[in-house]
Amino acid sequence: MKKIGKQTYKIKDNVIIRDTYTIVGPKEGEGPLKKDFDMVVQDDLFGEDSFEKSERKFQVTAVENLLKKNNLNKNEIDLLISGDLLNQIVSASFAARELQIPYIGIYGACSTMSLSMGLGALLIDGGFANNVVCATSSHFCSAERQYRAPLEMGGQRFMSAQWTVTGAGAVWLSNYGEGPKIKHVTFGKIVDLGVSDANNMGAAMAPAAYDSLNQHLIDTKIDYDLITTGDLGTVGKSIVNKLFIDDNNSIENKFDDCGTIIFDLEKQDVHAGGSGCGCSAVVFGSFLYKKLKNKEIKNLLFTSTGALHSPTVTLQGDSIPGIAHCIGIEI
Amino acid sequence: MKKIGKQTYKIKDNVIIRDTYTIVGPKEGEGPLKKDFDMVVQDDLFGEDSFEKSERKFQVTAVENLLKKNNLNKNEIDLLISGDLLNQIVSASFAARELQIPYIGIYGACSTMSLSMGLGALLIDGGFANNVVCATSSHFCSAERQYRAPLEMGGQRFMSAQWTVTGAGAVWLSNYGEGPKIKHVTFGKIVDLGVSDANNMGAAMAPAAYDSLNQHLIDTKIDYDLITTGDLGTVGKSIVNKLFIDDNNSIENKFDDCGTIIFDLEKQDVHAGGSGCGCSAVVFGSFLYKKLKNKEIKNLLFTSTGALHSPTVTLQGDSIPGIAHCIGIEI
Repeated sequence: MKKIGKQTYKIKDNVIIRDTYTIVGPKEGEGPLKKDFDMVVQDDLFGEDSFEKSERKFQVTAVENLLKKNNLNKNEIDLLISGDLLNQIVSASFAARELQIPYIGIYGACSTMSLSMGLGALLIDGGFANNVVCATSSHFCSAERQYRAPLEMGGQRFMSAQWTVTGAGAVWLSNYGEGPKIKHVTFGKIVDLGVSDANNMGAAMAPAAYDSLNQHLIDTKIDYDLITTGDLGTVGKSIVNKLFIDDNNSIENKFDDCGTIIFDLEKQDVHAGGSGCGCSAVVFGSFLYKKLKNKEIKNLLFTSTGALHSPTVTLQGDSIPGIAHCIGIEI
Repeated sequence: MKKIGKQTYKIKDNVIIRDTYTIVGPKEGEGPLKKDFDMVVQDDLFGEDSFEKSERKFQVTAVENLLKKNNLNKNEIDLLISGDLLNQIVSASFAARELQIPYIGIYGACSTMSLSMGLGALLIDGGFANNVVCATSSHFCSAERQYRAPLEMGGQRFMSAQWTVTGAGAVWLSNYGEGPKIKHVTFGKIVDLGVSDANNMGAAMAPAAYDSLNQHLIDTKIDYDLITTGDLGTVGKSIVNKLFIDDNNSIENKFDDCGTIIFDLEKQDVHAGGSGCGCSAVVFGSFLYKKLKNKEIKNLLFTSTGALHSPTVTLQGDSIPGIAHCIGIEI
C-alpha cells in the first residue's frame, strides 16, 4: 500500500499542479494579495439577484476561466471534485450543472480545497484520470445568512469571529506537464475538544489542524520551507503554535495561516481574520502557488481546516468537530 | 488510464465487498425486507432527544456493528467515506468523530451510497487502502423538518412524494478475501430538466439515472441480471423505463428501484415509495447483497440517485439538479 507512517499517502512523481484560477470579491480585492488574484469582482452580487446565485457564479467563473486560460476543453477533464459551505453544497452542484464534467461532490467545510486536491492526487496517481479540476467557493453574505444571522439584522460581530472570504479557487491537476507536484497527502481524523461557539471557529479547528500537521510531519519527516493552514485566523493560529511549542517542536518561524494572509488585519476590520472554503482556495491559487512557481520556496505543506458543525445541531447543544487535510507539495 | 468507453472506470479483480451492516427504523422493519436487515430499531428517536442525534446514532451503530461482526479493529480501516442528507452532513461528521478513522466527507444527496462505494473502489484499486468503510444514513423525521415542513405541522403529503427511509447502511470494501467484487464505476454528470417540485423527487432524478445507466451500459456492454436505482419511487421508475423504451433499449424486465422494494406500496401508505440516502444503502446491504452472495444473480448494476437541491435555492426559483453514480458488481 502507498502509505508511509500511520496516515500519509506517498504519491509518485506524476501529479502536477498545472495551473490555478482565483476570483474574489471587493473586500478581498482591497487586501494585501490584490495583485495576485486573477480576477476581482467589484460587486458582491456579481450581477445576480441573490448571494447564493452570486457564489455559484464565482465558482463557475473560476473553473471556466481556468480552462480557457489553458485552452482546455471540458471533455478533457476527467473529473470535477468540488464542494462549498452552503447547505447541500449547492454552489458546487449548480456549478457542476453548467460545467457538465463527471462530478464528485465533497463536504469538508473550509477543509474542502485540500480535501479535493488530496482526492484528485490519489485518483490521478491511481490511474483513473489524466486531468482533474478541484474547486471551491465561499461568500461572506451567503455564509452569514446560513450560519449566523442575515446581514440585514446588523448584528455586532465578536472579536474572535472571522470574515468569510468571498471568492472561488480552481486548481488543475494533471499527470503530464510542468509545475509543482503533490507528493504527500494526509486525510485527517475528526478532533473535537468541545468548543461550541460559532463565533470562534479558529479555536474549534486548531486542535484538528495540529493533529493532522503533526501526523504528516511524523509520517514524512520532511522539513518544509512553509506550512500553512486554511483559516484558523489569529486565535486558531496562536493555539496551533502553542500546541507545537508544548510538544517541543516549534514550527512558528515557518508557519502561517491563509486567514491572516488574505486581509490586512489592522486596517480591514475583519477581527480574527479570513475564513471559508474560499480562503485557503484563493490564497493557495494566487500567493502560495506563485511562491512555488517562482521557487521562492521549494516545498509547501498546504493544509485546509474545516469546522463541521451545523446551526441545527449547535442549537441542540453539540460542539463543533474539526478536521484538517494536508497536502505536501514540492517543486 | 483505467477508463473504458467515455465515462466508466474498470477496476481490477481486487475490490471485494466483504460485508455489510444495515439498521432501520420501525416502519422499514414492517416492510417486505424486515427479515433481511441486521437490526430493526423500534423507536424513531433511538433513545436520543432529537431526530438529528438519532440519525447519527443509526450511522455510528451501522459502522461499529459492521466492524464488530467481522472482528475488525478501527485502526485496520484506512478510510471512512461517508455522507448523509442533513446540512453540513452532520450525521456523517459526528459519526466520524466517534469512529476516529481518517475521514473523507462526501455529499451526493441520495446518491451517497454508490458515490462512496465508487470512490472506495478506486482508492483500493489505486493502492491507497486495504480496507475502506463506506456509510450513509437518512431519517424520515430529520429530513422532513429540513427539506419540507416539521412533522408537527401535520401537512398532507403529495401522492408523488416519497417516504425518506429511516436507517443506515455500512459497507466494508477490502483488497483481500471472498465476496462480490466491484468491477466498474461510472461517476455521473448533473442532469437537470427543470423539475422544481420538492414533492416529486423521482421525476427530478430520473433523467440523471437514465443518463448514467445508459452511459454505463454503452461503456461496458455488460448484460446485467439486475439493474437497480436508488430511490426514484414509482414516478421516477416509470420515467426511466420510458426513456429506455424510447431509445429502443428496454431494461424493464431486469430493472427495479430500491424505493419501491423497501416498502409495501399497497399497505404502507408511503405514496410513491421510499427515498433518502438510507434507502439504497439498506436495500443494497440486505436484499441485494444477499442475492449476490447466494448467487441468485451473477451481476448487479447498483445505482444510487441524488437530487441536489436545497430549500433555500428552491425558494429562489431554482430547479433540482439530479445525479446518479453506477457501481457494476459481479460474483
